[in-house]
Amino acid sequence: MTDRIQEFFRQRRAEGRDLGPCLVVDLDVIRDNYGAFAKALPDTRVFYAVKANPQPAVLDLLARLGSCFDTASVVEIQQVLATGCTPDRVSFGNTIKKERDIARAYELGIRLFAVDSEAEVEKIARAAPGSKVFCRILCDGAGAEWPLSRKFGCVPELAVGVLEHAHRLGLVAYGISFHVGSQQRNPRMWDGALKSSAAIFRDLAERGIHLSMVNLGGGFPTKYLRDVPAVKAYGQSIFRSLRKHFGNRIPETIIEPGRGMVGNAGVIEAEVVLISKKSADDQVKWVYLDIGKFNGLAETMDEMIRYPIRTAVDGDEMEPCVIAGPTCDSVDVLYEKQPYLLPVSLEIGAKVLIEGTGAYTTTYSAVEFNGFPPLETHVI
Amino acid sequence: MTDRIQEFFRQRRAEGRDLGPCLVVDLDVIRDNYGAFAKALPDTRVFYAVKANPQPAVLDLLARLGSCFDTASVVEIQQVLATGCTPDRVSFGNTIKKERDIARAYELGIRLFAVDSEAEVEKIARAAPGSKVFCRILCDGAGAEWPLSRKFGCVPELAVGVLEHAHRLGLVAYGISFHVGSQQRNPRMWDGALKSSAAIFRDLAERGIHLSMVNLGGGFPTKYLRDVPAVKAYGQSIFRSLRKHFGNRIPETIIEPGRGMVGNAGVIEAEVVLISKKSADDQVKWVYLDIGKFNGLAETMDEMIRYPIRTAVDGDEMEPCVIAGPTCDSVDVLYEKQPYLLPVSLEIGAKVLIEGTGAYTTTYSAVEFNGFPPLETHVI
Repeated sequence: MTDRIQEFFRQRRAEGRDLGPCLVVDLDVIRDNYGAFAKALPDTRVFYAVKANPQPAVLDLLARLGSCFDTASVVEIQQVLATGCTPDRVSFGNTIKKERDIARAYELGIRLFAVDSEAEVEKIARAAPGSKVFCRILCDGAGAEWPLSRKFGCVPELAVGVLEHAHRLGLVAYGISFHVGSQQRNPRMWDGALKSSAAIFRDLAERGIHLSMVNLGGGFPTKYLRDVPAVKAYGQSIFRSLRKHFGNRIPETIIEPGRGMVGNAGVIEAEVVLISKKSADDQVKWVYLDIGKFNGLAETMDEMIRYPIRTAVDGDEMEPCVIAGPTCDSVDVLYEKQPYLLPVSLEIGAKVLIEGTGAYTTTYSAVEFNGFPPLETHVI
Repeated sequence: MTDRIQEFFRQRRAEGRDLGPCLVVDLDVIRDNYGAFAKALPDTRVFYAVKANPQPAVLDLLARLGSCFDTASVVEIQQVLATGCTPDRVSFGNTIKKERDIARAYELGIRLFAVDSEAEVEKIARAAPGSKVFCRILCDGAGAEWPLSRKFGCVPELAVGVLEHAHRLGLVAYGISFHVGSQQRNPRMWDGALKSSAAIFRDLAERGIHLSMVNLGGGFPTKYLRDVPAVKAYGQSIFRSLRKHFGNRIPETIIEPGRGMVGNAGVIEAEVVLISKKSADDQVKWVYLDIGKFNGLAETMDEMIRYPIRTAVDGDEMEPCVIAGPTCDSVDVLYEKQPYLLPVSLEIGAKVLIEGTGAYTTTYSAVEFNGFPPLETHVI
């Protein structure tokens, strides 16, 4: 929470514009985060993961600061290029692309693509000849609050063949990428994947193919309820692993922070719609907000992300509550398995502030589920 | 799948407009479904659950057929009234409402509201004086493919107090509602809730309060992969339970079908973006489509709804596949725990048809997650 955000909400209430939930993102916080990444990993280029928050003002700021961009679709590429950023600072980082989208990206000047299969290599060889490709490898994601499935990446043994295939088809076999899991709380989790990466570098070098780059992915956490290690600790740990596995031939590196860049820059103001009990002897109260899984807080899925919630009566006696959203959908419950402590004196109609909501909230919103609009967003 | 839908997709491909996934909804199927409900439950009024599919043409058709409407928000009320439907055919069926939204609904002519707590009754007494209220009771949802949480409803003992409170505050204590769980495959599951409802009718009658109505909710299934009982079986089973528990004083009844009204009226055409393996000895293939959890198929959450997927090479040898969506989000996987059988000869770039997608697809779509647009939709 920053003074500027507090002032924005004060003003909004004073003007009677507080009709629904609203996210405010403070660019000063993002500027600080970018600086912290640049300082902690001085030899690493930052590719901001656009999907975390593609608001034009956020992209404009990061482009001005010198950031590069990791994109998931042609629309995201266009959003980045609209800032004036040149295409050599943009990667098409989705391993699942239609061939016509690869061709469109190539037309727009993009020359760096992610792959994890020979079939994808073949599409790129046809639609974006001569481009650089990096192959994503599977990583177990232990220690992450939002562990990743096996959806992206292949086993390291397969990656050797994929990159050899790329080389054979006239592409530049450029490097390896991996992702240690979103909101990764353990800075040492990069070590295993760097070990695998170094082995792939050696395997391919023996075949005359020299890789240049390791994409360290994202995973850098933002602070929700629990404290997280500082970016500096991640930088030190990653550098130690690079030295250990690559010796004095450290490759070019890039990172793709999303949540770690914008998560703590956003705060949502929401309203308590109803407080009730299901039976006379219920041990927990039900607190219903005007925001839920379908209009911004999709990442409460399986109660994975636990946002800090501030009220005007913090400090009063607390009691366990189930927190739910406003829709008629019964899965629109935020915290139930592990009830959330809220003040006993919290009342219907009160405002609450949900912190750490700068990432994965705006674009995740449903179009108009139950007639509720997407999340109102302001960047200041 | 209907001939009209097949013809629409044939035309769309011929015109080269098949650039992304697309849902087509056939109004003839909805007309048939409405007729089947009216015939199976002749003494019951149909309140279509607008949230299942609020496309204007769908609402227009149902309004013309004489349907009433169950709404979740002021926006949905406005969408229904825009068809020319009068407000006495509309209920505000969300038990979680802001007081200013109740006031707005009252201004629009709405006089029938859902509650499940004394606090909600008090809001309605202030903002919609003299209106009818029905109290939702909890129901265990056994037998449903999409079982409901405890989010809506209170225990029957509390419902008596809630309705007494409504009566005391000048509202009309009108009835009881419950929901047996979405996609409920067992027509006998209404029996327990009807038994509880009858007991509440008796308890309140002893206090001089005479309820009029039982809202039987939704839960009527649509056919996905497995066959489901016909609507007729539900009508017979519900009528038997009404006779059993209410004797010859059967109350007014209403139903709120959503999925059962529109689910089988819609088909999505999607495209295979990538087919790959994670390792050389992988037993399952990964098939990536251009539609996933974030642009229409949110109900594959926890693999709950298993849609039938048709291909042009059905009949060929089948093999187990993991099916995933196009975004860079690792939770965007549709079927993995229980792999899906697809033809060995299915190729990248092929079209597939996903049936039973008329309900809970369009409005569930994310605004623009990963730069992918919401689901293109046509009603024919």
